[in-house]
Amino acid sequence: MDLKAYLHEKRLIVEQTLQDLMLTPQGLLAEHIEAMSYSLFAGGKRVRPILCIAAAESLGTDLNGLLPVAASLEFIHTYSLIHDDLPAMDNDELRRCKPTNHIVHGEAAAILAGDGLLTMAFEILSAPQLRPTISAEKQVRLIHILATAAGPQGMVGGQAIDIASEGKEIPFTTLRYLHSCKTGALITAAVQMGAVLGDADAEQYQAFTDYGRNIGLAFQIVDDLLNVESTTEQLGKAAGSDAELDKATYPAFFGVEETKKKALNAVAEAIRALDGFDGKADPLREIANYIYYRKR
Amino acid sequence: MDLKAYLHEKRLIVEQTLQDLMLTPQGLLAEHIEAMSYSLFAGGKRVRPILCIAAAESLGTDLNGLLPVAASLEFIHTYSLIHDDLPAMDNDELRRCKPTNHIVHGEAAAILAGDGLLTMAFEILSAPQLRPTISAEKQVRLIHILATAAGPQGMVGGQAIDIASEGKEIPFTTLRYLHSCKTGALITAAVQMGAVLGDADAEQYQAFTDYGRNIGLAFQIVDDLLNVESTTEQLGKAAGSDAELDKATYPAFFGVEETKKKALNAVAEAIRALDGFDGKADPLREIANYIYYRKR
Repeated sequence: MDLKAYLHEKRLIVEQTLQDLMLTPQGLLAEHIEAMSYSLFAGGKRVRPILCIAAAESLGTDLNGLLPVAASLEFIHTYSLIHDDLPAMDNDELRRCKPTNHIVHGEAAAILAGDGLLTMAFEILSAPQLRPTISAEKQVRLIHILATAAGPQGMVGGQAIDIASEGKEIPFTTLRYLHSCKTGALITAAVQMGAVLGDADAEQYQAFTDYGRNIGLAFQIVDDLLNVESTTEQLGKAAGSDAELDKATYPAFFGVEETKKKALNAVAEAIRALDGFDGKADPLREIANYIYYRKR
Repeated sequence: MDLKAYLHEKRLIVEQTLQDLMLTPQGLLAEHIEAMSYSLFAGGKRVRPILCIAAAESLGTDLNGLLPVAASLEFIHTYSLIHDDLPAMDNDELRRCKPTNHIVHGEAAAILAGDGLLTMAFEILSAPQLRPTISAEKQVRLIHILATAAGPQGMVGGQAIDIASEGKEIPFTTLRYLHSCKTGALITAAVQMGAVLGDADAEQYQAFTDYGRNIGLAFQIVDDLLNVESTTEQLGKAAGSDAELDKATYPAFFGVEETKKKALNAVAEAIRALDGFDGKADPLREIANYIYYRKR
C-alpha cells in the first residue's frame, strides 16, 4: 500500500472535520477562538485521529458520520502541546516551525485556549449529533477511554511527573512510566476508540491496546532520538532542548544505537500484535513502521 | 426550613463524595494528586454540587448513588479557580484565606492540577460505576451539559473575554455576557444536571434553567459587591483587586445601591421561576436568598 497517499487522504478528511467542529471567530469570543484555531490548524500530522480511523477500518467499519470522534483526539493533543510549551512548563518558543501559542496570543490566552480545546473534546464526544449513528453506551465508553487517557493516570499525570523530574536523576523505570503516560496513553486511546467504533471483541480490543502501547513507546523513543539528532530547522522546535533541560531520555540512558534498537523492537511488537488481522490492518502496520522513519 | 443545617448536611455529603473520587497521593503521581487535592479540599462551600442535589430533590429524586454527578461540578469549579489565580491571569496569591495553588505548588504544577481536575470531571461522569443507576443516555446528556457550560461558549469563553477586557472600557452588554458565561453557565449547568437526574420534563427543565441563570447573575453581582465592600480578611482573597485591575464591575457601572437592587431583583426572578414547584424546592428558594446575604 501507498502509506504516503493514505496519510494524505486521511489527513485531509481530518482537517475538514476539525474545520467543521471549530467555532467561527466572531463577536466577543473571536480572540479566544482564534487562539484555539491557531494551534489546532498549525499543521499537525493528525496521527491520533488517523490511528483511530485506521483501527476502525481494520475491523471493516467506515467512520463516515463518526469522524468527530477521531477529531476529538486532536483537540486533546493540541491542548497538551499549548500547555506543555508555556513558560512555566517547557518554555518553548517554536512548535512546528511557528511561534508557540503564548508567544503569539499571550500566556493567559494560551492557557485558556488549552482549557477550551480540552473541554471541547468532551463537548464533541457527547454531542447529540453523533446519535443515532452510535449508541449512547458507545458514546459513554469513548468518553471514558479519552478522559482516562488524558487525565491524571494518563497524559496529564505523565506531564506532571516529567516536570517534577527535570534536573533530577530518575531511574529508567520512572522514565518508562512517564513515557507510557505522557505519550502512550493518548495514542493507545486513539486505537482503542477506533476499536470501540469498529465493534471489536475483547480479544481484538486487547490486540489494539498492545499495538497502541508499543507504537506509543516507539513514538516517544523516536522523539527523544530526534531531539538529539536533528537541527532546529528539521524539528520545527528547539533541538537539543532536552539535554539543555537535563531531561531523562532514552539516548541518555542507553546511547543512540541501543535506543534505535529499542524503537525498532517496539515497532516489531506493535506489528506482531496485529497478527490476527487481515489486510485491512495494513495501514496500522505501515504507520508503526512510519513512526520509526518519520523525519529521517 | 433551616438553610444553614441543610447546607451543612449536604456539604458533608459532597465532601465525602469528593474524598471518595479523588485519587490517593502515592507513587510517582503523589505530587500531582496533592496539588489537585490542595485546591479541591481548600474549604469550598460546594455551592454547585449542592444546587445539583437540591434541583434533583425538588423533583423528588434522591441522589444516593449519583453523588459523583454533583461532585463533578466541583472538579470543574476548582480547576477554574486554580487557572484564574495564575500569575498570567488574575495573579492572586490568596484564595479562601490560603495561598493559591501556584504559590504552594509552583506554576507548572498548578496548571497541570487544573488540567487534571478538568479532565477528571469527565472521567467521573463517564464512569461505568454510575450504571445501571442511570442510563447511558442520561450520562451523555449530563456530560454534554457540563462540557458546553465549561467550554468556550461558557465558562472558559467568559474568562477569555474577562482577561481580554482588562484595562479596557467595555459596554455593559459585554459585562453582562461575560458574567453569564463565566459564572452563570456552570451554576445553570448545576441545576440543569439536577433536573436531568430528576427526570424533569421540558417545562420543568426550562424553569430550572431560568432559576440557574438568575442566581448565576445574582452570584456574580454579589461577588462584585463583596470585592468593593469587604476587607481582605472577610473575603479570603485580596479585596479591591477588581478596581486595581481596572475591571468592569456592576458597582463601577451603577454604583453600589443600584447594584444591590439588581442583585435582589435577580434573586426574586430566580424564586419566581420556581412557582410551579412545591415545598421540595424550598432549599433552592432559600439558596437564592442566601446568595444575596452571604458574608454580609
